[in-house]
Amino acid sequence: MMHFHEEVSSVQNPKVKQVVRWRDRPDRDDSQVVLAEGYRALVRALAGGYRMDEVFVCPEFFPGQEHEEALLEQLRAQGAKLIRVAPAAFTKMAYRDRPEGLLGVGPQLHRTLADLTLSQCPLLLIAEQIEKPGNLGTMMRSSDAVKVDALVLCDSKTDLYNPNVVRASTGNLFTLPVAEATTAETIPWLKSHGIRILATSPHVDTLYTQVNLAEPVAVVVGAEQYGLTRPWLEQADLVVRLPMLGEADSLNVATATAVMLYEALRQRLVAGVVKDPGRVPESADC
Amino acid sequence: MMHFHEEVSSVQNPKVKQVVRWRDRPDRDDSQVVLAEGYRALVRALAGGYRMDEVFVCPEFFPGQEHEEALLEQLRAQGAKLIRVAPAAFTKMAYRDRPEGLLGVGPQLHRTLADLTLSQCPLLLIAEQIEKPGNLGTMMRSSDAVKVDALVLCDSKTDLYNPNVVRASTGNLFTLPVAEATTAETIPWLKSHGIRILATSPHVDTLYTQVNLAEPVAVVVGAEQYGLTRPWLEQADLVVRLPMLGEADSLNVATATAVMLYEALRQRLVAGVVKDPGRVPESADC
Repeated sequence: MMHFHEEVSSVQNPKVKQVVRWRDRPDRDDSQVVLAEGYRALVRALAGGYRMDEVFVCPEFFPGQEHEEALLEQLRAQGAKLIRVAPAAFTKMAYRDRPEGLLGVGPQLHRTLADLTLSQCPLLLIAEQIEKPGNLGTMMRSSDAVKVDALVLCDSKTDLYNPNVVRASTGNLFTLPVAEATTAETIPWLKSHGIRILATSPHVDTLYTQVNLAEPVAVVVGAEQYGLTRPWLEQADLVVRLPMLGEADSLNVATATAVMLYEALRQRLVAGVVKDPGRVPESADC
Repeated sequence: MMHFHEEVSSVQNPKVKQVVRWRDRPDRDDSQVVLAEGYRALVRALAGGYRMDEVFVCPEFFPGQEHEEALLEQLRAQGAKLIRVAPAAFTKMAYRDRPEGLLGVGPQLHRTLADLTLSQCPLLLIAEQIEKPGNLGTMMRSSDAVKVDALVLCDSKTDLYNPNVVRASTGNLFTLPVAEATTAETIPWLKSHGIRILATSPHVDTLYTQVNLAEPVAVVVGAEQYGLTRPWLEQADLVVRLPMLGEADSLNVATATAVMLYEALRQRLVAGVVKDPGRVPESADC
Protein backbone atom coordinates (compact mmCIF):
# COMPACT_ATOMS: atom_id res chain seq x y z
CA MET A 1 0.00 0.00 0.00
CA MET A 2 1.50 3.29 -1.06
CA HIS A 3 1.34 6.52 0.89
CA PHE A 4 1.09 9.83 -0.87
CA HIS A 5 1.95 13.37 0.15
CA GLU A 6 -1.00 14.83 -1.70
CA GLU A 7 -4.03 13.90 -3.80
CA VAL A 8 -5.28 15.47 -7.02
CA SER A 9 -8.65 14.47 -8.39
CA SER A 10 -9.88 17.39 -10.51
CA VAL A 11 -8.80 17.99 -14.11
CA GLN A 12 -9.01 21.68 -13.16
CA ASN A 13 -6.35 21.33 -10.46
CA PRO A 14 -3.60 23.99 -10.92
CA LYS A 15 -0.88 21.30 -10.86
CA VAL A 16 -2.54 19.48 -13.76
CA LYS A 17 -2.73 22.69 -15.75
CA GLN A 18 0.90 23.54 -14.94
CA VAL A 19 2.17 20.19 -16.21
CA VAL A 20 0.23 20.66 -19.45
CA ARG A 21 1.71 24.15 -19.86
CA TRP A 22 5.24 22.77 -19.40
CA ARG A 23 4.88 21.01 -22.75
CA ASP A 24 5.46 24.41 -24.34
CA ARG A 25 8.95 25.75 -24.51
CA PRO A 26 8.47 29.23 -22.98
CA ASP A 27 6.92 27.77 -19.80
CA ARG A 28 9.54 25.03 -19.63
CA ASP A 29 12.39 27.49 -20.13
CA ASP A 30 11.01 29.80 -17.43
CA SER A 31 10.71 27.02 -14.90
CA GLN A 32 13.77 25.02 -16.11
CA VAL A 33 11.93 21.76 -15.55
CA VAL A 34 12.13 18.39 -17.25
CA LEU A 35 9.19 15.98 -17.51
CA ALA A 36 10.02 12.28 -17.26
CA GLU A 37 7.00 10.20 -18.15
CA GLY A 38 6.71 6.45 -17.71
CA TYR A 39 8.62 3.82 -15.77
CA ARG A 40 11.59 3.54 -18.10
CA ALA A 41 12.13 7.30 -18.38
CA LEU A 42 12.08 7.69 -14.59
CA VAL A 43 14.51 4.82 -14.04
CA ARG A 44 16.87 6.34 -16.61
CA ALA A 45 16.47 9.82 -15.12
CA LEU A 46 17.54 8.52 -11.70
CA ALA A 47 20.45 6.61 -13.26
CA GLY A 48 21.51 9.77 -15.08
CA GLY A 49 21.69 11.89 -11.93
CA TYR A 50 18.40 13.75 -12.34
CA ARG A 51 16.41 14.54 -9.21
CA MET A 52 12.60 14.62 -9.21
CA ASP A 53 10.76 17.22 -7.13
CA GLU A 54 7.30 15.80 -7.72
CA VAL A 55 6.07 12.50 -9.12
CA PHE A 56 2.46 12.20 -10.24
CA VAL A 57 1.12 8.69 -9.80
CA CYS A 58 -1.99 6.97 -11.14
CA PRO A 59 -1.81 3.27 -10.21
CA GLU A 60 -4.86 2.48 -12.39
CA PHE A 61 -2.55 2.89 -15.42
CA PHE A 62 0.37 0.78 -14.09
CA PRO A 63 1.19 -2.01 -16.58
CA GLY A 64 2.59 -4.04 -13.64
CA GLN A 65 2.74 -3.23 -9.94
CA GLU A 66 5.83 -4.47 -8.14
CA HIS A 67 8.40 -2.55 -10.20
CA GLU A 68 6.47 0.71 -9.89
CA GLU A 69 6.20 0.52 -6.11
CA ALA A 70 9.92 -0.09 -5.68
CA LEU A 71 10.73 2.83 -7.96
CA LEU A 72 8.38 5.11 -6.04
CA GLU A 73 10.01 4.17 -2.74
CA GLN A 74 13.38 5.05 -4.24
CA LEU A 75 12.07 8.38 -5.52
CA ARG A 76 10.52 9.16 -2.13
CA ALA A 77 13.80 8.34 -0.38
CA GLN A 78 15.54 10.85 -2.64
CA GLY A 79 13.15 13.61 -1.64
CA ALA A 80 10.45 13.46 -4.32
CA LYS A 81 6.92 14.38 -3.30
CA LEU A 82 4.53 11.63 -4.46
CA ILE A 83 1.17 12.90 -5.64
CA ARG A 84 -1.79 10.58 -6.20
CA VAL A 85 -3.74 11.59 -9.32
CA ALA A 86 -7.19 10.39 -10.41
CA PRO A 87 -7.32 8.74 -13.88
CA ALA A 88 -9.12 11.58 -15.70
CA ALA A 89 -6.69 14.17 -14.36
CA PHE A 90 -3.69 11.94 -15.15
CA THR A 91 -4.90 11.43 -18.71
CA LYS A 92 -4.90 15.19 -19.13
CA MET A 93 -1.34 15.51 -17.76
CA ALA A 94 0.07 12.59 -19.71
CA TYR A 95 1.84 13.29 -22.96
CA ARG A 96 2.12 9.71 -24.10
CA ASP A 97 -0.63 7.92 -26.01
CA ARG A 98 -0.55 5.00 -23.62
CA PRO A 99 0.04 6.52 -20.17
CA GLU A 100 1.78 4.28 -17.65
CA GLY A 101 0.64 6.18 -14.55
CA LEU A 102 3.98 7.81 -13.69
CA LEU A 103 5.13 11.34 -14.47
CA GLY A 104 8.06 13.04 -12.75
CA VAL A 105 8.99 16.71 -12.70
CA GLY A 106 12.47 17.87 -11.77
CA PRO A 107 15.16 20.42 -12.56
CA GLN A 108 16.87 20.39 -15.97
CA LEU A 109 20.57 19.60 -16.18
CA HIS A 110 22.79 21.54 -18.57
CA ARG A 111 26.34 20.43 -19.33
CA THR A 112 29.08 22.20 -21.23
CA LEU A 113 32.09 20.73 -23.05
CA ALA A 114 34.15 21.13 -19.87
CA ASP A 115 31.81 18.71 -18.05
CA LEU A 116 32.52 15.81 -20.41
CA THR A 117 34.76 12.85 -19.59
CA LEU A 118 36.38 11.20 -22.59
CA SER A 119 37.58 7.62 -23.07
CA GLN A 120 40.94 6.59 -24.54
CA CYS A 121 39.57 6.48 -28.08
CA PRO A 122 36.56 8.76 -28.07
CA LEU A 123 33.59 8.54 -30.44
CA LEU A 124 31.40 11.63 -30.38
CA LEU A 125 28.32 12.79 -32.19
CA ILE A 126 28.03 16.50 -32.93
CA ALA A 127 24.53 17.58 -33.99
CA GLU A 128 24.38 21.08 -35.41
CA GLN A 129 21.14 23.07 -35.60
CA ILE A 130 18.80 20.08 -35.61
CA GLU A 131 15.21 21.32 -35.87
CA LYS A 132 12.96 18.31 -35.35
CA PRO A 133 12.66 16.91 -31.83
CA GLY A 134 11.87 13.44 -33.18
CA ASN A 135 15.16 13.39 -35.09
CA LEU A 136 17.13 14.54 -32.07
CA GLY A 137 15.52 11.92 -29.83
CA THR A 138 16.15 9.14 -32.37
CA MET A 139 19.79 10.27 -32.62
CA MET A 140 20.06 9.96 -28.82
CA ARG A 141 18.71 6.42 -28.95
CA SER A 142 21.31 5.46 -31.58
CA SER A 143 24.08 7.32 -29.69
CA ASP A 144 23.30 5.28 -26.61
CA ALA A 145 23.32 2.06 -28.64
CA VAL A 146 26.86 2.59 -29.96
CA LYS A 147 27.88 4.16 -26.65
CA VAL A 148 29.27 7.48 -27.80
CA ASP A 149 31.41 9.33 -25.28
CA ALA A 150 29.10 12.31 -25.70
CA LEU A 151 26.51 13.99 -27.85
CA VAL A 152 27.26 17.68 -28.38
CA LEU A 153 24.37 19.88 -29.49
CA CYS A 154 25.75 22.85 -31.39
CA ASP A 155 23.58 25.93 -31.80
CA SER A 156 20.53 23.72 -31.33
CA LYS A 157 17.20 24.70 -32.89
CA THR A 158 15.21 22.46 -30.58
CA ASP A 159 15.52 22.39 -26.82
CA LEU A 160 16.91 19.32 -25.16
CA TYR A 161 13.88 18.83 -22.91
CA ASN A 162 11.15 19.03 -25.55
CA PRO A 163 8.72 16.17 -24.69
CA ASN A 164 9.15 14.75 -28.21
CA VAL A 165 12.92 14.55 -27.70
CA VAL A 166 12.38 12.67 -24.43
CA ARG A 167 9.86 10.34 -26.07
CA ALA A 168 11.83 9.60 -29.26
CA SER A 169 14.96 9.02 -27.15
CA THR A 170 13.01 6.36 -25.19
CA GLY A 171 14.49 7.93 -22.06
CA ASN A 172 18.11 7.65 -23.26
CA LEU A 173 18.32 11.43 -23.04
CA PHE A 174 18.73 11.02 -19.30
CA THR A 175 21.68 8.62 -19.30
CA LEU A 176 23.52 9.93 -22.34
CA PRO A 177 26.26 12.54 -21.71
CA VAL A 178 24.87 15.54 -23.61
CA ALA A 179 26.69 18.88 -23.80
CA GLU A 180 25.37 22.12 -25.25
CA ALA A 181 27.83 24.42 -27.00
CA THR A 182 28.36 26.70 -29.95
CA THR A 183 30.13 25.65 -33.12
CA ALA A 184 32.78 28.28 -32.38
CA GLU A 185 33.52 26.62 -29.02
CA THR A 186 33.30 23.03 -30.23
CA ILE A 187 35.69 23.03 -33.19
CA PRO A 188 38.78 24.21 -31.20
CA TRP A 189 37.80 21.94 -28.29
CA LEU A 190 37.82 18.89 -30.62
CA LYS A 191 41.13 19.95 -32.19
CA SER A 192 42.77 20.44 -28.81
CA HIS A 193 41.67 16.94 -27.76
CA GLY A 194 43.06 15.33 -30.92
CA ILE A 195 39.60 14.23 -32.09
CA ARG A 196 39.20 14.15 -35.87
CA ILE A 197 36.17 15.89 -37.32
CA LEU A 198 34.20 13.73 -39.76
CA ALA A 199 31.74 15.66 -41.92
CA THR A 200 29.53 14.38 -44.73
CA SER A 201 28.91 15.88 -48.14
CA PRO A 202 27.43 14.46 -51.35
CA HIS A 203 30.17 16.24 -53.32
CA VAL A 204 33.23 14.17 -52.35
CA ASP A 205 34.63 10.88 -53.67
CA THR A 206 35.54 9.14 -50.39
CA LEU A 207 32.88 6.86 -48.95
CA TYR A 208 32.23 6.73 -45.19
CA THR A 209 33.41 3.11 -45.22
CA GLN A 210 36.82 4.06 -46.67
CA VAL A 211 38.14 6.02 -43.69
CA ASN A 212 39.48 4.81 -40.35
CA LEU A 213 36.82 5.35 -37.68
CA ALA A 214 38.62 3.28 -35.05
CA GLU A 215 40.56 6.35 -33.96
CA PRO A 216 39.32 9.38 -31.94
CA VAL A 217 36.56 10.81 -34.12
CA ALA A 218 33.55 13.11 -33.99
CA VAL A 219 30.74 12.41 -36.45
CA VAL A 220 29.23 15.79 -37.31
CA VAL A 221 25.75 16.13 -38.79
CA GLY A 222 23.83 19.24 -39.74
CA ALA A 223 20.35 20.67 -40.04
CA GLU A 224 17.58 18.73 -41.81
CA GLN A 225 17.22 21.18 -44.68
CA TYR A 226 20.57 22.84 -45.14
CA GLY A 227 23.16 20.41 -43.75
CA LEU A 228 26.37 21.52 -42.07
CA THR A 229 27.46 25.14 -41.87
CA ARG A 230 30.65 26.26 -43.58
CA PRO A 231 32.98 26.20 -40.51
CA TRP A 232 32.44 22.46 -40.05
CA LEU A 233 33.10 21.66 -43.72
CA GLU A 234 36.19 23.88 -43.74
CA GLN A 235 37.62 22.54 -40.48
CA ALA A 236 36.78 18.88 -41.08
CA ASP A 237 39.68 16.40 -41.04
CA LEU A 238 37.66 13.93 -43.09
CA VAL A 239 34.78 14.60 -45.47
CA VAL A 240 32.92 11.51 -46.61
CA ARG A 241 29.90 10.55 -48.66
CA LEU A 242 27.11 8.04 -48.07
CA PRO A 243 26.38 6.17 -51.30
CA MET A 244 22.96 7.10 -52.72
CA LEU A 245 21.86 4.69 -55.46
CA GLY A 246 18.26 5.78 -55.97
CA GLU A 247 16.26 8.89 -56.76
CA ALA A 248 16.77 10.66 -53.44
CA ASP A 249 19.75 12.89 -52.80
CA SER A 250 19.87 12.46 -49.03
CA LEU A 251 18.81 10.32 -46.08
CA ASN A 252 16.86 11.45 -43.05
CA VAL A 253 19.45 13.01 -40.71
CA ALA A 254 18.82 10.57 -37.85
CA THR A 255 19.14 7.68 -40.32
CA ALA A 256 22.40 8.97 -41.80
CA THR A 257 23.75 9.46 -38.28
CA ALA A 258 22.98 5.87 -37.28
CA VAL A 259 24.54 4.46 -40.45
CA MET A 260 27.78 6.34 -39.75
CA LEU A 261 27.83 5.55 -36.02
CA TYR A 262 27.27 1.85 -36.73
CA GLU A 263 30.07 1.83 -39.31
CA ALA A 264 32.32 3.36 -36.63
CA LEU A 265 31.19 0.65 -34.21
CA ARG A 266 31.79 -2.09 -36.80
CA GLN A 267 35.36 -0.88 -37.34
CA ARG A 268 35.94 -0.48 -33.60
CA LEU A 269 34.74 -4.02 -32.88
CA VAL A 270 37.06 -5.37 -35.60
CA ALA A 271 39.98 -3.29 -34.25
CA GLY A 272 39.28 -4.37 -30.67
CA VAL A 273 38.79 -0.77 -29.50
CA VAL A 274 35.42 -1.73 -28.00
CA LYS A 275 33.92 -5.03 -26.96
CA ASP A 276 30.54 -6.45 -27.99
CA PRO A 277 28.51 -7.16 -24.83
CA GLY A 278 26.97 -10.20 -26.55
CA ARG A 279 23.41 -11.39 -26.87
CA VAL A 280 20.61 -10.66 -24.47
CA PRO A 281 19.43 -13.79 -22.62
CA GLU A 282 15.92 -14.92 -23.64
CA SER A 283 14.64 -14.45 -20.12
CA ALA A 284 15.97 -10.91 -19.79
CA ASP A 285 13.32 -8.54 -18.51
CA CYS A 286 13.72 -5.49 -20.72
CA MET B 1 0.94 32.54 -68.54
CA MET B 2 -0.87 29.42 -67.35
CA HIS B 3 -4.40 28.46 -68.26
CA PHE B 4 -6.61 26.69 -65.76
CA HIS B 5 -9.67 24.51 -66.15
CA GLU B 6 -11.29 25.91 -63.05
CA GLU B 7 -10.82 28.42 -60.23
CA VAL B 8 -11.37 27.99 -56.50
CA SER B 9 -11.26 31.01 -54.23
CA SER B 10 -13.38 30.18 -51.17
CA VAL B 11 -12.09 28.13 -48.24
CA GLN B 12 -15.66 26.75 -48.12
CA ASN B 13 -15.42 25.28 -51.62
CA PRO B 14 -16.44 21.59 -51.61
CA LYS B 15 -13.19 20.59 -53.34
CA VAL B 16 -11.15 22.20 -50.57
CA LYS B 17 -13.17 20.35 -47.94
CA GLN B 18 -12.85 17.07 -49.84
CA VAL B 19 -9.05 17.30 -49.99
CA VAL B 20 -8.93 17.96 -46.24
CA ARG B 21 -11.19 14.93 -45.60
CA TRP B 22 -8.87 12.73 -47.67
CA ARG B 23 -6.23 13.07 -44.96
CA ASP B 24 -8.27 10.59 -42.95
CA ARG B 25 -8.04 6.96 -43.81
CA PRO B 26 -11.74 6.06 -44.16
CA ASP B 27 -12.31 8.79 -46.75
CA ARG B 28 -9.08 7.95 -48.54
CA ASP B 29 -9.91 4.24 -48.61
CA ASP B 30 -13.41 4.93 -49.94
CA SER B 31 -12.15 7.10 -52.77
CA GLN B 32 -8.86 5.19 -53.32
CA VAL B 33 -6.99 8.43 -53.91
CA VAL B 34 -3.42 9.48 -53.26
CA LEU B 35 -2.38 13.07 -52.50
CA ALA B 36 0.97 14.20 -53.92
CA GLU B 37 1.94 17.55 -52.48
CA GLY B 38 4.84 19.68 -53.66
CA TYR B 39 7.00 19.77 -56.76
CA ARG B 40 9.25 16.85 -55.85
CA ALA B 41 6.38 14.53 -54.91
CA LEU B 42 4.58 15.26 -58.18
CA VAL B 43 7.70 14.70 -60.28
CA ARG B 44 8.28 11.39 -58.51
CA ALA B 45 4.63 10.40 -58.85
CA LEU B 46 4.81 10.91 -62.62
CA ALA B 47 8.11 9.01 -62.79
CA GLY B 48 6.52 6.17 -60.81
CA GLY B 49 3.60 5.73 -63.18
CA TYR B 50 0.95 7.54 -61.13
CA ARG B 51 -1.67 9.55 -62.99
CA MET B 52 -3.15 12.75 -61.52
CA ASP B 53 -6.84 13.53 -62.06
CA GLU B 54 -6.69 17.01 -60.57
CA VAL B 55 -3.83 19.31 -59.65
CA PHE B 56 -4.49 22.26 -57.34
CA VAL B 57 -2.20 25.19 -58.07
CA CYS B 58 -1.39 28.34 -56.12
CA PRO B 59 1.46 30.17 -57.90
CA GLU B 60 1.82 32.62 -54.98
CA PHE B 61 3.51 29.77 -53.05
CA PHE B 62 5.86 28.60 -55.85
CA PRO B 63 9.49 28.68 -54.60
CA GLY B 64 10.58 29.14 -58.25
CA GLN B 65 8.51 29.46 -61.42
CA GLU B 66 10.02 27.85 -64.51
CA HIS B 67 10.14 24.27 -63.17
CA GLU B 68 6.57 24.43 -61.93
CA GLU B 69 5.16 25.63 -65.26
CA ALA B 70 6.93 22.87 -67.19
CA LEU B 71 5.63 20.25 -64.76
CA LEU B 72 2.09 21.60 -65.03
CA GLU B 73 2.23 21.42 -68.82
CA GLN B 74 3.33 17.80 -68.55
CA LEU B 75 0.51 17.03 -66.12
CA ARG B 76 -2.03 18.73 -68.37
CA ALA B 77 -0.78 16.76 -71.38
CA GLN B 78 -1.39 13.56 -69.40
CA GLY B 79 -5.00 14.51 -68.76
CA ALA B 80 -4.86 16.25 -65.36
CA LYS B 81 -7.35 19.04 -64.72
CA LEU B 82 -5.47 22.11 -63.43
CA ILE B 83 -7.35 24.08 -60.80
CA ARG B 84 -6.27 27.57 -59.74
CA VAL B 85 -6.64 28.02 -55.95
CA ALA B 86 -6.49 31.26 -53.96
CA PRO B 87 -3.81 31.36 -51.21
CA ALA B 88 -6.19 31.12 -48.22
CA ALA B 89 -7.97 28.11 -49.72
CA PHE B 90 -4.68 26.45 -50.69
CA THR B 91 -3.32 26.90 -47.16
CA LYS B 92 -6.34 25.01 -45.90
CA MET B 93 -5.81 22.15 -48.38
CA ALA B 94 -2.07 21.91 -47.88
CA TYR B 95 -0.75 19.31 -45.48
CA ARG B 96 2.83 20.53 -45.42
CA ASP B 97 4.07 23.26 -43.10
CA ARG B 98 5.62 25.16 -45.98
CA PRO B 99 3.25 24.73 -48.91
CA GLU B 100 4.80 24.91 -52.37
CA GLY B 101 1.58 25.68 -54.23
CA LEU B 102 1.12 22.27 -55.88
CA LEU B 103 -1.15 19.43 -54.78
CA GLY B 104 -2.14 16.54 -57.03
CA VAL B 105 -4.91 14.00 -56.54
CA GLY B 106 -4.96 10.72 -58.41
CA PRO B 107 -5.80 7.04 -58.11
CA GLN B 108 -3.85 4.80 -55.72
CA LEU B 109 -1.71 2.01 -57.14
CA HIS B 110 -1.62 -1.35 -55.38
CA ARG B 111 0.93 -3.98 -56.32
CA THR B 112 1.21 -7.60 -55.25
CA LEU B 113 4.25 -9.87 -55.13
CA ALA B 114 3.45 -11.05 -58.66
CA ASP B 115 3.92 -7.49 -59.97
CA LEU B 116 7.56 -7.26 -58.81
CA THR B 117 10.57 -7.54 -61.11
CA LEU B 118 13.71 -8.84 -59.44
CA SER B 119 17.37 -8.25 -60.32
CA GLN B 120 20.05 -10.97 -60.54
CA CYS B 121 20.99 -10.59 -56.87
CA PRO B 122 17.94 -9.11 -55.21
CA LEU B 123 17.94 -7.05 -52.01
CA LEU B 124 14.49 -6.65 -50.49
CA LEU B 125 13.05 -5.03 -47.42
CA ILE B 126 10.09 -6.73 -45.76
CA ALA B 127 8.29 -4.53 -43.22
CA GLU B 128 5.80 -6.41 -41.06
CA GLN B 129 3.00 -4.66 -39.18
CA ILE B 130 4.67 -1.26 -38.99
CA GLU B 131 2.38 1.13 -37.09
CA LYS B 132 3.90 4.59 -37.41
CA PRO B 133 3.62 6.34 -40.78
CA GLY B 134 6.79 8.36 -40.08
CA ASN B 135 8.79 5.14 -39.64
CA LEU B 136 7.38 3.63 -42.83
CA GLY B 137 8.15 6.79 -44.83
CA THR B 138 11.70 6.97 -43.46
CA MET B 139 12.19 3.30 -44.37
CA MET B 140 11.10 4.11 -47.93
CA ARG B 141 13.64 6.92 -48.15
CA SER B 142 16.43 4.54 -47.02
CA SER B 143 15.16 1.77 -49.32
CA ASP B 144 15.42 4.12 -52.25
CA ALA B 145 18.93 5.17 -51.22
CA VAL B 146 20.29 1.61 -51.26
CA LYS B 147 18.07 0.77 -54.25
CA VAL B 148 16.22 -2.27 -52.95
CA ASP B 149 14.48 -4.38 -55.58
CA ALA B 150 11.27 -3.94 -53.63
CA LEU B 151 9.70 -3.06 -50.31
CA VAL B 152 7.06 -5.58 -49.25
CA LEU B 153 4.55 -4.44 -46.64
CA CYS B 154 3.28 -7.47 -44.76
CA ASP B 155 0.03 -7.20 -42.82
CA SER B 156 0.59 -3.46 -42.60
CA LYS B 157 -0.88 -1.47 -39.71
CA THR B 158 -0.60 1.81 -41.55
CA ASP B 159 -1.87 2.48 -45.04
CA LEU B 160 0.60 3.14 -47.79
CA TYR B 161 -0.97 6.46 -48.75
CA ASN B 162 -1.13 8.07 -45.30
CA PRO B 163 0.05 11.69 -45.83
CA ASN B 164 2.76 11.20 -43.19
CA VAL B 165 4.14 8.21 -45.12
CA VAL B 166 4.27 10.32 -48.29
CA ARG B 167 5.93 13.19 -46.42
CA ALA B 168 8.52 11.14 -44.49
CA SER B 169 9.37 9.26 -47.70
CA THR B 170 10.13 12.65 -49.34
CA GLY B 171 8.15 11.38 -52.33
CA ASN B 172 10.18 8.16 -52.70
CA LEU B 173 6.99 6.24 -52.08
CA PHE B 174 6.05 6.95 -55.69
CA THR B 175 9.17 5.61 -57.39
CA LEU B 176 9.92 2.71 -55.05
CA PRO B 177 8.48 -0.70 -56.04
CA VAL B 178 6.16 -1.41 -53.10
CA ALA B 179 4.08 -4.59 -52.83
CA GLU B 180 1.41 -5.36 -50.27
CA ALA B 181 1.04 -8.96 -49.09
CA THR B 182 0.45 -11.20 -46.11
CA THR B 183 3.22 -12.93 -44.21
CA ALA B 184 1.68 -16.26 -45.27
CA GLU B 185 2.08 -15.31 -48.94
CA THR B 186 5.49 -13.68 -48.63
CA ILE B 187 7.52 -16.40 -46.91
CA PRO B 188 6.91 -19.11 -49.57
CA TRP B 189 7.35 -16.51 -52.34
CA LEU B 190 10.82 -15.61 -50.99
CA LYS B 191 11.75 -19.29 -50.60
CA SER B 192 10.64 -20.11 -54.14
CA HIS B 193 12.79 -17.27 -55.49
CA GLY B 194 15.88 -18.42 -53.58
CA ILE B 195 15.98 -15.25 -51.47
CA ARG B 196 17.35 -15.76 -47.97
CA ILE B 197 15.31 -14.38 -45.10
CA LEU B 198 17.35 -12.24 -42.68
CA ALA B 199 15.63 -11.60 -39.35
CA THR B 200 16.97 -9.77 -36.30
CA SER B 201 16.78 -10.76 -32.66
CA PRO B 202 18.68 -9.58 -29.56
CA HIS B 203 18.93 -13.23 -28.43
CA VAL B 204 21.45 -14.59 -30.97
CA ASP B 205 25.25 -14.52 -31.11
CA THR B 206 25.80 -13.69 -34.80
CA LEU B 207 26.20 -10.01 -35.61
CA TYR B 208 24.63 -8.52 -38.74
CA THR B 209 28.14 -7.79 -40.02
CA GLN B 210 29.14 -11.47 -39.81
CA VAL B 211 26.83 -12.83 -42.52
CA ASN B 212 27.07 -12.59 -46.29
CA LEU B 213 24.62 -9.96 -47.52
CA ALA B 214 26.02 -9.88 -51.06
CA GLU B 215 23.71 -12.72 -52.04
CA PRO B 216 19.92 -12.65 -52.65
CA VAL B 217 18.53 -11.52 -49.32
CA ALA B 218 15.40 -10.03 -47.75
CA VAL B 219 15.91 -7.90 -44.63
CA VAL B 220 12.82 -8.43 -42.48
CA VAL B 221 11.81 -6.00 -39.75
CA GLY B 222 8.83 -6.08 -37.41
CA ALA B 223 6.44 -3.88 -35.48
CA GLU B 224 7.73 -1.03 -33.30
CA GLN B 225 6.62 -2.57 -30.02
CA TYR B 226 6.64 -6.32 -30.52
CA GLY B 227 9.13 -7.02 -33.30
CA LEU B 228 8.73 -9.86 -35.77
CA THR B 229 6.00 -12.47 -35.50
CA ARG B 230 6.89 -16.10 -34.93
CA PRO B 231 6.63 -17.33 -38.57
CA TRP B 232 9.42 -14.99 -39.66
CA LEU B 233 11.74 -16.01 -36.83
CA GLU B 234 11.02 -19.70 -37.47
CA GLN B 235 11.45 -19.51 -41.25
CA ALA B 236 14.45 -17.19 -41.26
CA ASP B 237 17.60 -18.46 -42.99
CA LEU B 238 19.74 -16.04 -40.97
CA VAL B 239 19.00 -14.50 -37.59
CA VAL B 240 21.38 -11.72 -36.60
CA ARG B 241 21.86 -9.17 -33.84
CA LEU B 242 22.72 -5.49 -33.90
CA PRO B 243 25.28 -4.74 -31.18
CA MET B 244 23.77 -2.63 -28.39
CA LEU B 245 26.44 -1.20 -26.10
CA GLY B 246 24.39 1.20 -24.00
CA GLU B 247 21.32 1.21 -21.80
CA ALA B 248 18.74 0.73 -24.55
CA ASP B 249 17.72 -2.71 -25.72
CA SER B 250 16.67 -1.71 -29.23
CA LEU B 251 16.95 0.91 -31.96
CA ASN B 252 14.11 2.73 -33.65
CA VAL B 253 12.86 0.35 -36.37
CA ALA B 254 13.58 2.74 -39.25
CA THR B 255 17.10 3.27 -37.85
CA ALA B 256 17.78 -0.47 -37.48
CA THR B 257 16.52 -1.01 -41.03
CA ALA B 258 18.88 1.60 -42.47
CA VAL B 259 21.88 0.20 -40.57
CA MET B 260 21.21 -3.27 -42.00
CA LEU B 261 20.47 -2.06 -45.53
CA TYR B 262 23.67 0.01 -45.57
CA GLU B 263 25.70 -2.95 -44.34
CA ALA B 264 24.22 -4.96 -47.22
CA LEU B 265 25.16 -2.14 -49.60
CA ARG B 266 28.69 -1.95 -48.15
CA GLN B 267 29.20 -5.68 -48.76
CA ARG B 268 27.65 -5.47 -52.23
CA LEU B 269 29.93 -2.59 -53.25
CA VAL B 270 32.97 -4.55 -52.04
CA ALA B 271 31.78 -7.70 -53.87
CA GLY B 272 31.06 -5.75 -57.05
CA VAL B 273 27.38 -6.77 -57.03
CA VAL B 274 26.38 -3.11 -57.32
CA LYS B 275 28.20 -0.01 -58.47
CA ASP B 276 28.56 3.28 -56.59
CA PRO B 277 27.20 6.09 -58.80
CA GLY B 278 29.86 8.44 -57.39
CA ARG B 279 29.69 11.92 -56.01
CA VAL B 280 27.10 14.53 -56.90
CA PRO B 281 28.63 17.48 -58.84
CA GLU B 282 28.62 20.75 -56.85
CA SER B 283 26.40 22.41 -59.41
CA ALA B 284 23.75 19.68 -59.35
CA ASP B 285 20.28 21.07 -58.94
CA CYS B 286 18.67 18.77 -56.40
